[in-house]
Amino acid sequence: MHFVGRSWLLLTGFILFYVIYLLFGALVFSSIERPMEESMRTELKVLKQEFLNLSCVSDAALERFLLKVLAANKYGVSVLRNASTTSNWDLASSMFFANTLVTTVGYGHTTPLSDTGKAFSILYALIGVPFTMLVLTACVQRIMFPLVLAPVGLLQRSGLEPRPATIVHFLLLLILLVMCFFVAPAAVFSAVELSWSFLDGIYFCFISLCTIGLGDFVPGTQPNQQYRSLYQVAVMVQSLGCAPAATSWVSVRELYREYQANTGTTFRNNCDLLVYLFVGLIMMFLLLRTFHKMADLHGL
Amino acid sequence: MHFVGRSWLLLTGFILFYVIYLLFGALVFSSIERPMEESMRTELKVLKQEFLNLSCVSDAALERFLLKVLAANKYGVSVLRNASTTSNWDLASSMFFANTLVTTVGYGHTTPLSDTGKAFSILYALIGVPFTMLVLTACVQRIMFPLVLAPVGLLQRSGLEPRPATIVHFLLLLILLVMCFFVAPAAVFSAVELSWSFLDGIYFCFISLCTIGLGDFVPGTQPNQQYRSLYQVAVMVQSLGCAPAATSWVSVRELYREYQANTGTTFRNNCDLLVYLFVGLIMMFLLLRTFHKMADLHGL
Ligand SMILES: [K+]
Ligand SMILES: [K+]
Repeated sequence: MHFVGRSWLLLTGFILFYVIYLLFGALVFSSIERPMEESMRTELKVLKQEFLNLSCVSDAALERFLLKVLAANKYGVSVLRNASTTSNWDLASSMFFANTLVTTVGYGHTTPLSDTGKAFSILYALIGVPFTMLVLTACVQRIMFPLVLAPVGLLQRSGLEPRPATIVHFLLLLILLVMCFFVAPAAVFSAVELSWSFLDGIYFCFISLCTIGLGDFVPGTQPNQQYRSLYQVAVMVQSLGCAPAATSWVSVRELYREYQANTGTTFRNNCDLLVYLFVGLIMMFLLLRTFHKMADLHGL
Repeated sequence: MHFVGRSWLLLTGFILFYVIYLLFGALVFSSIERPMEESMRTELKVLKQEFLNLSCVSDAALERFLLKVLAANKYGVSVLRNASTTSNWDLASSMFFANTLVTTVGYGHTTPLSDTGKAFSILYALIGVPFTMLVLTACVQRIMFPLVLAPVGLLQRSGLEPRPATIVHFLLLLILLVMCFFVAPAAVFSAVELSWSFLDGIYFCFISLCTIGLGDFVPGTQPNQQYRSLYQVAVMVQSLGCAPAATSWVSVRELYREYQANTGTTFRNNCDLLVYLFVGLIMMFLLLRTFHKMADLHGL
């Protein structure tokens, strides 16, 4: 019991330090990149005004203008009037960026513009990536008992042989993972994000939790859209159960409208995504480890 | 000897199957996405012409036009006149995309546009990611002897104690890795890519080999630039050694100009990048494993 207490303390310390590390990264990235972004934003606005004031639009002028527009867009600065006015480098967004660095997901929807930012990214990931792997592994070890050892024991006590028990358990875990981290979030995304289909949601979840992170779909980054929240994922999974929640995405939309009326903070959205990535990756690791165990037992 | 022969055969089979898997992915992605890309390209060209033909450019018209331009840009279709005319979904580029999927780097400089493409990406990565990990692990096991066990044995025979020997070896391996997979490629990149500084090159190598893959720097994708090649990395590392090659990046530029005059194929560029990612990731894994071994030996 003494040992268990100490290992919980260690894990809490790890997670606390992880959060502090993310906050530290957010502060540094924000202070480095925000001025660069501001100047790029103003420059682009001036360029656009100049372009609109031209009496006749020549091919060459349009080309020059578009070149600048696309370059700015690469760093997450949009030329559109109704683009989100919130900075890509406020504290919450910077923290999200830091999180995508250390989990190696790297959506790249915003990227550092300055040399200092690039150099800091390298240093930050150099320490952060191994540390995050450590924290994730520690979390997986902690949930091994309630999610793997205990259920397998239960299945065996209920009369199953060890080998079929591991297979049944693996399949149950797979269904749980797919429901809680693919189907349910995808249902929420397709309700919350205006232009996302259900397939887009599944695609985003999969590409994220495999740490591929293509960045073509990132929640809350589209123009002409308020920042949305994934708060419901947690609410739903806890209150409604997984499978019914996933199928009842019409009610999710209702829930969301109510929620939207009550809150509307950027920070919450980014934090939810951050927690989604963190917990989802833990579950992916757990599934991988369980699969390895099962394969070992079957002599594969 | 019999066992060694069989394990080499297995590895060759793995790598052969890996290449076949990439080619298969390339064929499917190319056939799915190319028509979509073509239609997007023509549509954008028509839009641009219509926009240029407007007698007066209103704010609203510009806004509508830019919205379409940015949406197309997200999928790798550029509005610029002097943008690369080669498709993002020809066979070589599709193969490179497939490679960034299965290695989980996922630059996202081109992303599937169609639902079929997204669904296929999920399936392709579902099989490809674990398989690639298997191939990389098999390669690491194969180079363990020449790059880890043999040098450590040599250091021990030359009079070093086991513990200092592992430290010296780890540091030597680290230097080799940094020279061959960070400094030398960065030197080549800064010579070959017009707008890349040396830091940009290091940043690209680091972000790639950590599998973060932000995608803000991807060789050979900038507008107004011919497709470039990293062929010299191999040539340089083999002929000149690592450290001198890295510092003599002026001569690299000379080498490159000659090379550019002789060849100019897209396929080679993408293949070189693919090999760079593959070999670089193997080396990263090897370093990580060596570090673990050293840490174990020191009771950390
Ligand atoms: K990525
Ligand atoms: K990635």
